[in-house]
Amino acid sequence: MRKTKVVKVKNLKIGGGNPIRIKGMLKSPTSKKSLLLQEAKALQREGAELLRVAVQSEKDTKLAQFLRKSISIPIAADIHFKPKLALLAIKDGFDQIRLNPLNITRKKDIKEIAKFAAEKKVPIRVGVNSGGFKGRLTPLGIARQMVDKCADYIKILESQKFFDIIVSLKSADIESTLAANKEFSQNFNYPLHLGITASGPRLEGVVKSSQGLGILLNSGIGDLIRVSLTADSLLEIQVSKHILRFLNLRKFGPEIISCPTCSRCQVDLVKIVNILEARLKRLELKKPVRAAVMGCVVNGPGEASQADLGVAFSKKRGAVFKKGKVLHWSTPSKAIDDLIREVKKDGF
Amino acid sequence: MRKTKVVKVKNLKIGGGNPIRIKGMLKSPTSKKSLLLQEAKALQREGAELLRVAVQSEKDTKLAQFLRKSISIPIAADIHFKPKLALLAIKDGFDQIRLNPLNITRKKDIKEIAKFAAEKKVPIRVGVNSGGFKGRLTPLGIARQMVDKCADYIKILESQKFFDIIVSLKSADIESTLAANKEFSQNFNYPLHLGITASGPRLEGVVKSSQGLGILLNSGIGDLIRVSLTADSLLEIQVSKHILRFLNLRKFGPEIISCPTCSRCQVDLVKIVNILEARLKRLELKKPVRAAVMGCVVNGPGEASQADLGVAFSKKRGAVFKKGKVLHWSTPSKAIDDLIREVKKDGF
Repeated sequence: MRKTKVVKVKNLKIGGGNPIRIKGMLKSPTSKKSLLLQEAKALQREGAELLRVAVQSEKDTKLAQFLRKSISIPIAADIHFKPKLALLAIKDGFDQIRLNPLNITRKKDIKEIAKFAAEKKVPIRVGVNSGGFKGRLTPLGIARQMVDKCADYIKILESQKFFDIIVSLKSADIESTLAANKEFSQNFNYPLHLGITASGPRLEGVVKSSQGLGILLNSGIGDLIRVSLTADSLLEIQVSKHILRFLNLRKFGPEIISCPTCSRCQVDLVKIVNILEARLKRLELKKPVRAAVMGCVVNGPGEASQADLGVAFSKKRGAVFKKGKVLHWSTPSKAIDDLIREVKKDGF
Repeated sequence: MRKTKVVKVKNLKIGGGNPIRIKGMLKSPTSKKSLLLQEAKALQREGAELLRVAVQSEKDTKLAQFLRKSISIPIAADIHFKPKLALLAIKDGFDQIRLNPLNITRKKDIKEIAKFAAEKKVPIRVGVNSGGFKGRLTPLGIARQMVDKCADYIKILESQKFFDIIVSLKSADIESTLAANKEFSQNFNYPLHLGITASGPRLEGVVKSSQGLGILLNSGIGDLIRVSLTADSLLEIQVSKHILRFLNLRKFGPEIISCPTCSRCQVDLVKIVNILEARLKRLELKKPVRAAVMGCVVNGPGEASQADLGVAFSKKRGAVFKKGKVLHWSTPSKAIDDLIREVKKDGF
């Protein structure tokens, strides 16, 4: 695990061995205030620890104060093209700003922003995306250019004694995302915000993000993740949590182990799992619980006994396990009630 | 990339630098013949290159011949507990059998099966799953046991001069799956069939499989993948293809690059992307095409110009790109037609 400098965004510590953070993004139009607020609250409730808003106008810079009344997590302004908006966003209370080295490029502007951000203790994310380059480039060519652009930008910020920097190097393909982040992490110790950008339709986006972020995180690279999907913003947080949880980097709520079902399975396992998942979620558990729901006697008893709780079906009946031991026998219709009862009893 | 021995299942070469193969699994009950046949055909059409059937009875061993009439890909029998079924499955025409070292354990039986499989040129998958072990073990403890069980089994097969072996080491958690497969690949050169087993509800399963298989494949380990989801068997094939495609290991059909949409986006991008995806799929393209659909001017023109085709929206209009150049301007309602027309024109 690569240990970076710690950058504090409001009260959220990023990097340096802190838990890998989850960032969410508001997708509602900034003109629709009530929708925006509703989305922000839902994202915070779902587990977002930092929130990004697109700031495109002077009006948008007022959003930090507006959102601050209802949410407690830090709020970041995503700024492109207009240096003036960066200064206003800092003045108007955003906890972080993001600058894009490909469209805010004048040294004079960057230095002015760095100076003001230092004064107000507002960290800057230097964020480059593959989409900022035009023309048909190779993946490694894109990676090369992304790292170079960031390195140049960082030099300018550092020349102003500004070091509260977070960096993101995002591409629509895994190869260039991996190459850019690996190279950056070998040469700098600023925290990395990871993401696969423009990841495609929902299912493709989940696969691509899980692979790309999974590979980087598993090699010790990454301090914050932002999963981007062409889909609902809440799903992005759910996927983020799954990515971190399955790599044992964070713990969140219940985990369900369930088999793919096959010709051996004689119960409606997909239905049972979906109901169990919804009911476990509603319990808002404090401790992570691992529950197994398995469809046959080949791997069922094993998985069920390895989990905190589990049921292993054989034909129409199922053995209910708790911490490795069979409690009693159940049926498909009763199994969920049985598991939920045991979860409650144990105070998870 | 680790180069293994090549094992041939019917006419499908696995390992040794051949393309990473995609395996599908029949989930319909084997008693429901017409459902089973329909599922097998659909899986082959979707892209499965090998098909697994659970063989639990003497009746089930007749399924190879039954399915063979309608599908051309090799068919594998998944066998547990009963050595006799392994012999029958080979006799009755299955192209591969899977043995579980945790439940077919008598040396005499294993040797008899190996001898007969060698005679009939039927390869054996030695497949161990974490669910086969009972009790509460650590991830590395499970990995250790899985590799040991396989190693012992392989010794017995090799003692009979049987070398057409494929191995799978699957666990419900990523840590033990990675550890087991890494260790195995350092010590043996038999092809590895990769999978995360009992991966949980649909979304969790997609994330966990993409991460686990992504990390292994990216490190050069793995010759065939079987994605297991508590969901429809066709989805398993779709996810498999995405996993391989995004790592540039295989090429399949169209790839869509699309942004997550944010407050900057003023068109219904999710809808546009979903319709485009469905229409591209229906075209059954011969060449892989990469199409970008982007919601704003920040990264839109870049991604659109890097793709084969693309549209980058700004407010309500979008620039249609082809191979890096703007063709013309379009609208949300016309953009899909425009892209599809260009795809057809280019004969993708």
